[in-house]
Amino acid sequence: MKALSIDLTSGTVTELPISPESTQYYLGGRGLGIRYLYDHLPENTDPLSPENILGLWTSPLMGTGAVSMVKLCGVTRSPQTGTILMSLMGGYFGPELRFAGVDGLIFHGRAEKPVYLLVKEGVAELLPAEHLWGLSTRETADRITQDLDLKRIQIASIGPAGENLVAFASIMHQGNAMGRGGIGSVMGSKNLKAIAASGKQRPPLAQPDRYQAAVKRITQSYRESEALALFGTTGTTQHVDGLNLKHMYPTRNFQDGKFEEYQQVNADTLYKKHVQKRISCQGCSVRCRRESANTEGPYAGTITDGPEYETLWGFGGLCGNDSLNAVIKANDLCLEYGMDTISAAGVISFGMECFERGLISTEDTEGIELRFGNPDAIIEMLPLIARKEGFGRILAQGTRRAAELIGGNAEEYAMQVKGLELAGYDPRNAKGMALGYATSPRGACHERGYLTAETVGFPPGVDRLAYEGKGELVKEAQDTVAVKDSLSFCVLSSAGTSLDDMAELFSAAVGIEVTSQDLLEAGERINNLERLFNIREGFSRVDDTLPRRFLREPILDNQGNPQTVDIELLLDLYYQARGWDPQGHPLPETLERLGLRETDSPGSQVFGQ
Amino acid sequence: MKALSIDLTSGTVTELPISPESTQYYLGGRGLGIRYLYDHLPENTDPLSPENILGLWTSPLMGTGAVSMVKLCGVTRSPQTGTILMSLMGGYFGPELRFAGVDGLIFHGRAEKPVYLLVKEGVAELLPAEHLWGLSTRETADRITQDLDLKRIQIASIGPAGENLVAFASIMHQGNAMGRGGIGSVMGSKNLKAIAASGKQRPPLAQPDRYQAAVKRITQSYRESEALALFGTTGTTQHVDGLNLKHMYPTRNFQDGKFEEYQQVNADTLYKKHVQKRISCQGCSVRCRRESANTEGPYAGTITDGPEYETLWGFGGLCGNDSLNAVIKANDLCLEYGMDTISAAGVISFGMECFERGLISTEDTEGIELRFGNPDAIIEMLPLIARKEGFGRILAQGTRRAAELIGGNAEEYAMQVKGLELAGYDPRNAKGMALGYATSPRGACHERGYLTAETVGFPPGVDRLAYEGKGELVKEAQDTVAVKDSLSFCVLSSAGTSLDDMAELFSAAVGIEVTSQDLLEAGERINNLERLFNIREGFSRVDDTLPRRFLREPILDNQGNPQTVDIELLLDLYYQARGWDPQGHPLPETLERLGLRETDSPGSQVFGQ
Repeated sequence: MKALSIDLTSGTVTELPISPESTQYYLGGRGLGIRYLYDHLPENTDPLSPENILGLWTSPLMGTGAVSMVKLCGVTRSPQTGTILMSLMGGYFGPELRFAGVDGLIFHGRAEKPVYLLVKEGVAELLPAEHLWGLSTRETADRITQDLDLKRIQIASIGPAGENLVAFASIMHQGNAMGRGGIGSVMGSKNLKAIAASGKQRPPLAQPDRYQAAVKRITQSYRESEALALFGTTGTTQHVDGLNLKHMYPTRNFQDGKFEEYQQVNADTLYKKHVQKRISCQGCSVRCRRESANTEGPYAGTITDGPEYETLWGFGGLCGNDSLNAVIKANDLCLEYGMDTISAAGVISFGMECFERGLISTEDTEGIELRFGNPDAIIEMLPLIARKEGFGRILAQGTRRAAELIGGNAEEYAMQVKGLELAGYDPRNAKGMALGYATSPRGACHERGYLTAETVGFPPGVDRLAYEGKGELVKEAQDTVAVKDSLSFCVLSSAGTSLDDMAELFSAAVGIEVTSQDLLEAGERINNLERLFNIREGFSRVDDTLPRRFLREPILDNQGNPQTVDIELLLDLYYQARGWDPQGHPLPETLERLGLRETDSPGSQVFGQ
Repeated sequence: MKALSIDLTSGTVTELPISPESTQYYLGGRGLGIRYLYDHLPENTDPLSPENILGLWTSPLMGTGAVSMVKLCGVTRSPQTGTILMSLMGGYFGPELRFAGVDGLIFHGRAEKPVYLLVKEGVAELLPAEHLWGLSTRETADRITQDLDLKRIQIASIGPAGENLVAFASIMHQGNAMGRGGIGSVMGSKNLKAIAASGKQRPPLAQPDRYQAAVKRITQSYRESEALALFGTTGTTQHVDGLNLKHMYPTRNFQDGKFEEYQQVNADTLYKKHVQKRISCQGCSVRCRRESANTEGPYAGTITDGPEYETLWGFGGLCGNDSLNAVIKANDLCLEYGMDTISAAGVISFGMECFERGLISTEDTEGIELRFGNPDAIIEMLPLIARKEGFGRILAQGTRRAAELIGGNAEEYAMQVKGLELAGYDPRNAKGMALGYATSPRGACHERGYLTAETVGFPPGVDRLAYEGKGELVKEAQDTVAVKDSLSFCVLSSAGTSLDDMAELFSAAVGIEVTSQDLLEAGERINNLERLFNIREGFSRVDDTLPRRFLREPILDNQGNPQTVDIELLLDLYYQARGWDPQGHPLPETLERLGLRETDSPGSQVFGQ
C-alpha cells in the first residue's frame, strides 16, 4: 500500500509506502490515520493553520469486491473540538481512490489559491479551482465532471461552508458526508476545494484466491440475509418510532425524550410520502439509504439523498419541527453547502432554546422567529450559517463557542461534549450511550461506542438504564468499531460480517495471519493511541463529561421514573475496563501490552518500513 | 408445582407433586415430559393403545407475566414415528392451565365413551363429550364455552382427524396447533375430545420481588426492541422470499429449491391482500401472528388464524400451488379438522409426485387430478384425509406408510425422516438443517436444531453450505431449544430473552440458583434422555438419515453448483460433538457427566420427592 503526501504550499507530491507491519498494527483507515498524525503533527497545532495535517485513508480491504467496505476515513485535528478527529464517508469515492492506485492522501500546507486534486491511475495532479470556489457541492462535482470529461470519476468536495470555515463544515460526495468535527473547514483552510479520483486498477491482494473465496462467501451471505433485507427496507429511519417509545428521542434541544408529533417525521410517513428510491453504497446489497423528494407542499421540488435518522431527528423533533418537507429541504441545504446535519440541527436547536428563554431575540436574528416548531426558521438559518451572515455568524461557530458568544447562562443549553453536538439518542435513558458520548475521542459521537443492545434491543439481556457492565460493554464496542473504521467497514451493514470473517479477509489481503482477537487488540491499540493524542492536547477526565442538563435535569423513562446520568460512576467503570488510571490516562502496563510504550512501540514510525 | 395424573379408564384423578429438584434437572415442559415418560412408559408400547401416556406440561415460568412463555409441551410416544414426541402449542391455553392451578396433565388409559376434561381452580373433572364427537375444533370450543358458561375459559381439543386417528392429527387451541407427530390421535385414541381450563390463580414464585423485577425489565426490553418490532411486521412469512433466494424453498415435493411463482404466495402478497389483523399469544408484545381472509376469488369467505411460513410454503410451493386463496382455505381446513399443516401438505405433495409419475391415477383418487399446481386437489383431499375416505385413507397414514401402501418405487418420493414429513427448508442447501432433520428426536423437525445463521443470516459468519463446525452448532442449537421448550419459551420471540435472563427468571421462580451454563447442561441432559428413549425403542444411526433424494439427487445452489448432503460426514461430526459413539449411543462418560447413569441418576424418579 502507499499513500501520497501532498504539500499544498509547494505543490509537491511524494509517495509514502505503507508497510504490511503498519497495517498489522493499525489495520488501515482510522488506525493508520492516528498513527500518522500522532507521529507527525506537532502538539498544539492550530487545526485551521497550514501546519495541520489532513489524512484521507482507505484500507487494505476497500474496493476489493467485499460488501460494505466503503468508508473512507478522514483523520486530522478537529477545528471544532481540538481533539483527534476521525470522520467517515461512504458511497463510491473511497473505493475509486484505490482503483486510482492510491491508498491514502495526506495533505500538508496551504495552497496559495484554490486548487483541487485529481488522482488518475496512480498519478496525482493539482489543478486550479478558482472557478469552483463558492459553488455548492453538487455544482462542484458537476463542473469537475464536465471539465475533465473522464469515463469514470468520483468526486469529494467542500461547499461554501467549508470555504467559510464553518465549525461543522463537511466534505461531501454525492449525498455522503464526511460530516462531523469540521473536517470540511480543514480542507477549506488549505484552499483545497475538491478531490477527483478515477482509475481502473485492482487493489493488490496477497492471496487472491483465498481472498476471493471469502468475498464470494460473505457477499452471498449478505444477499441472502433476511435480517439485513429487513433492515434495508427503512434503514436507520426506523429508529424514530423505537427511540420515542424508549424516551430516547431528544426533543426541543434535549428538553424531553419523546416528541408528541413523531409520527409526522417517522419512517412510515417518510417512505409513504417522500422516498422515491432506495440507494446503496459501492458494492453493498443492503441498500439501506434513500432518495427523498418533496413532490408537494412547502419546499416542493426538493430532491435529496437521505435523510438518515440523525437528520430526520435533528431537523425534526430536536427542533420541535413536525414538517417533513422542511426536514428534506434542510437535508438538501446541508448537502449543498457542505455542513454536518447533526451539528447544524444541534446548533439551531440550541439557538431556539436561547431564543425562547429570552437570551436572544429577533434583534439578534434579524427578524427570524427562531422558535421550536418553526420550520421556516431552520430553512432561513442554514444558508446564513454556511455563509456566516447575520446570526449565522454566531451559530457557525458551533454550539460551544456560540454559547460563549451569546453569554449569560447560554452554556446551560449547549448540548455538546468537547465542542461536538450530541446525536439523536438521549443519554439519560441509555447509560452506555452516555458513556460513549463522554469518552468518544472526537467528542459527543454516538457511533464510536454504539450499543445496539440499548437502541434496537439486540443482543437481548442488556438493561439500557443499568450502570453495571457498561464500562466493559462500551470498551468492547469502541474497540470493535475501531476495527471497522480502520478496515473501512460500514458500521451498519457490517452487521453481516463477523470478526472472524474480517480476520480472514485481512489475512488473505495483506498476507499476515491475524485472528479476530488480533483485530480487537488493534482496535484497542487505536483507541489508546487516540487517547494519547488527546492527552497530549490537554484533554483529561474533566473533559470526559456531559452537558449539565443530563447530570442534573431528569427526564422520565418510559416507566415514569426520573433519569439522569451518574457520569463519574460510568467513568470509573470505563477507565477500569480500559486499564486507565482514575484521570483517564492509560496505565504503563496497558500501553506495554498494546506495544504503545514510546521507546519500543512497534507501531511508532512504522510507515515506509 | 404439581401435575394431575388422570386415569381415563377408571376416571380417577391423582395429584403428582413435582419437586424443585425435578425442575432443577429437567426445568419443565419438554424436560419433565421426557423424564416422566422414560420412567413410566414400558418399552414398545403401542402409541395408540390405552397404555400410552400423554403428558401436557407447563413450566415454572409459564403464566407469570413474562413475555413469550406460552408454549405448552405435549410429550408422548408418537404414533406417526414411534419415537419420543414433543409437540408445542402457543396461544392462551397453557398459561390458563396454570391459572387453573395445574402445572401438568398426564393422561393414562382410555375412556369408555368420549369425554372432556375441565380443570377449574385446581379441580379436575371428566365430563361427557359424546355430543362433541365429530365436531370441528372451532365448533367444539364454541359448544364447550356455551355449555360451561364460565367467565373465562381456554380450550384445546382435537377435531375429526384426531378422532379418526389420522397419523398427523393435531391438538388445536384457536389457531394454535400442537401439530406434529400425531399427538391429536393419541388424544383421540383415549376418547379424550377436549380440555378446558379456567382459573384465576397466580402461579407461585419463590422470590416474587426478584422475579417481578426481572419480568418488568425483560418485558420492557421486548416492547422497546426495534429488531423484534421489525420481525413482528410479517413474522415467519418473510422466509418465502429469503429461502427462494437461497434455493432452500422446497418446491413440488422437494424436486427444486425455488418456486417460479413464489411472489404469488409470499409475505408481500399475503399482507397486501389477505391479512386483516395481527394477533399475538398470551402476554407477547411481538404479535408476529396474523388473521387472514379470502375476501374475493376462490374460497371467498374463509377467515383463519395464520398462515405461518410452513403452511404458506407447504400448501404453496411444495404443492406447486400459486393460489394464496387455496392456501388460506387449506390452512383453515387443517385448523377445523385438527391436522398438522406441514405433514398434510407433505403427504399431499408426495401424492402429487406419485400421481405425476404414474404410480397412482384418478382411479385411485376417485377422480381427483392430484397434480402439482392444482389448488382444488388440495382442498378436495384434505377432508378426505381427515375423514379417512377415498384416497384419503392412504394419505391419512402419513407419507412413510402411504409409500408402503402405494408400493412400487413410491418410497423414493417419500420426504420423511423416521416417518415425519420435512418442513420448508431444503436440506441440500443448508447442511446444519440437514443434520437437524436427521437427528431431531421426533423425526424431520426443523425447530429442534434451527440455525438462524443458515436461514435468516444471523449471526453472520456461518456458511450454510459448509460441513465444518455444523456438529457443534447443531448440538448447541438443540440444547438451547431444549431449554426453551422446557421453560415454555416460544422459539421465535425468545430471541428477545438471553440465556442469562432465563437463568435469572428460573432462579427467582424456583428458588434454586442456576446459571445459563446450568440451563444449557439441562438442555443437553434432555436431548440425551430423549436419545436413550429412542434407543430403547430401537432407533440408532441408520435412522438418523435423510430421504435418498437429498443424498443422491442434487439441486443447484444459487451459485449454480449442484448440492447433495453427505449425511455420514455430518453424523460423524455431530456424534463427536455430542459425546456419542459412532452408532449414536451416548458414551458412558457423557451420561455420567449429565447425571444420566441408570444407577445414580439424580433425575431418575425425581417426581414427588
